[in-house]
Amino acid sequence: MTQQLDDHWFTEVFDSHGSAFSLKISEKLLDVQSPYQHLEVYATQTYGNLMVLDGCVMLTDRDNFLYHEMMSHPALFTHADPRRVVIIGGGDCGTLREVLKHPGVEKVTQIDIDEEVTKASERFFPALTSSNDDPRAELLFEDGVKWIDTAPAESVDIIIIDSTDPVGPAEGLFKVDFLAKCHRLLRSGGVMVQQSESPLYHSTTIIRELRADMRKAGFDSVATLPFPQPVYPSGWWSATLAGKGMDVNVFREDAAARADLALDYYSVELHRGALVLPPFMRHQLAD
Amino acid sequence: MTQQLDDHWFTEVFDSHGSAFSLKISEKLLDVQSPYQHLEVYATQTYGNLMVLDGCVMLTDRDNFLYHEMMSHPALFTHADPRRVVIIGGGDCGTLREVLKHPGVEKVTQIDIDEEVTKASERFFPALTSSNDDPRAELLFEDGVKWIDTAPAESVDIIIIDSTDPVGPAEGLFKVDFLAKCHRLLRSGGVMVQQSESPLYHSTTIIRELRADMRKAGFDSVATLPFPQPVYPSGWWSATLAGKGMDVNVFREDAAARADLALDYYSVELHRGALVLPPFMRHQLAD
Repeated sequence: MTQQLDDHWFTEVFDSHGSAFSLKISEKLLDVQSPYQHLEVYATQTYGNLMVLDGCVMLTDRDNFLYHEMMSHPALFTHADPRRVVIIGGGDCGTLREVLKHPGVEKVTQIDIDEEVTKASERFFPALTSSNDDPRAELLFEDGVKWIDTAPAESVDIIIIDSTDPVGPAEGLFKVDFLAKCHRLLRSGGVMVQQSESPLYHSTTIIRELRADMRKAGFDSVATLPFPQPVYPSGWWSATLAGKGMDVNVFREDAAARADLALDYYSVELHRGALVLPPFMRHQLAD
Repeated sequence: MTQQLDDHWFTEVFDSHGSAFSLKISEKLLDVQSPYQHLEVYATQTYGNLMVLDGCVMLTDRDNFLYHEMMSHPALFTHADPRRVVIIGGGDCGTLREVLKHPGVEKVTQIDIDEEVTKASERFFPALTSSNDDPRAELLFEDGVKWIDTAPAESVDIIIIDSTDPVGPAEGLFKVDFLAKCHRLLRSGGVMVQQSESPLYHSTTIIRELRADMRKAGFDSVATLPFPQPVYPSGWWSATLAGKGMDVNVFREDAAARADLALDYYSVELHRGALVLPPFMRHQLAD
């Protein structure tokens, strides 16, 4: 006996992993074909609004705090004094909002190729775009790889790659030549962080290759931090940090403990715990 | 555009949370109506074999290590010297196997009402039943609540409630009078652990109530440990520990670090990290 889903459900099938995740929807709110991707927004029954790009779940109101906090605060509390931050992708602006919670940050440039994503987020996820008017925020809608090519070397403290999966438009963001460009852009002591897929599904493939490519690109240290993410494949996700002339396996624990950023998932203890990989990942990621 | 699942998929719908999880199946291996429940086993495309009870996913080959390790090792490394262990439910024998990895354990009694579950596990999940012949293991097939009623008081070090969800047959295992029976059965210094559903879905309901009921039943300390579990609702699950005359928020870190149990998920650092709840859970579980 298996249950059937009628057309009141949005389903994303993860073909290569033989699993699927579905959310019950009450209404379709938006359906736009941008020059870059197919963008949909649904109202769900219990997850608030849902954003979908090319059929893949990007975020929901209910659980995006996990991803956005883990894509930002570990990197910011790892860098000694982060002032200049660049976000590639991240058009929903949730990562931008988290970064701007750090008072020491002087400027954040977010470069997403697709302005439609930000427009949809302003309309349907207003909490995520609530910091877009911060004078420290700069929103550009252009090709992030080209932007990095022309930006001055050693001008940035933190680069956050808040991209879609490494297939299609974002594939290049996982390659060694792109990672080398990020390395060039960072000042010494700089940190980059890349969303790096599922610990269960991708430890022997994407995560392992990304870590090796980060080292090939010149980074001196890497750290993969797993975290739960119910709406992504396997419900378990990861962020991989890389350090230029510094070790991303240690962080400013005192600052993280003292900071009062009103977060829902990240804490100093959480960060400490996430830095220690479960044994199966340690084995699968070993060189 | 949403994808449709044909009848090569097994789908479990979590109605009250408006989400669903599906696995692609290649074959149905077993379909039995026991006196207690409807038991199915499928071969899946990428998760190995899958056991289903009354339409709910119980376990798969691929990810059961997460649940079984977290239902056993935190409790065993929290108790000062665990020798006598009781498992209520747990008919697949995966928790039993983990408990028996501890050399100090002298006897483990597993009481599951439904022998068909163990028979199915022996046939389709042989890795999980590989310790059933251990002379320290006792397998009983009867009502666990009745067994606890007649067992001598203060005769057990650890009770593990490895049950299905708190609806239907297992509902009584979450009630305060059952928890009081567990408390009576435990020696001073004893630990009980209960699977306690999803941090995202149940922090303000089942988890909160279970913790309150454990205290009402006489326990002196409680601790809820979250962990990823891809095949369970939201992909994120928890185990809640309770201590009799002892604090379950501290554990034998040295022993956990020294032990060489060949585990895939549990480690001393993992345990330490899991004891610190994410801020949103701390708020939702606050009295």
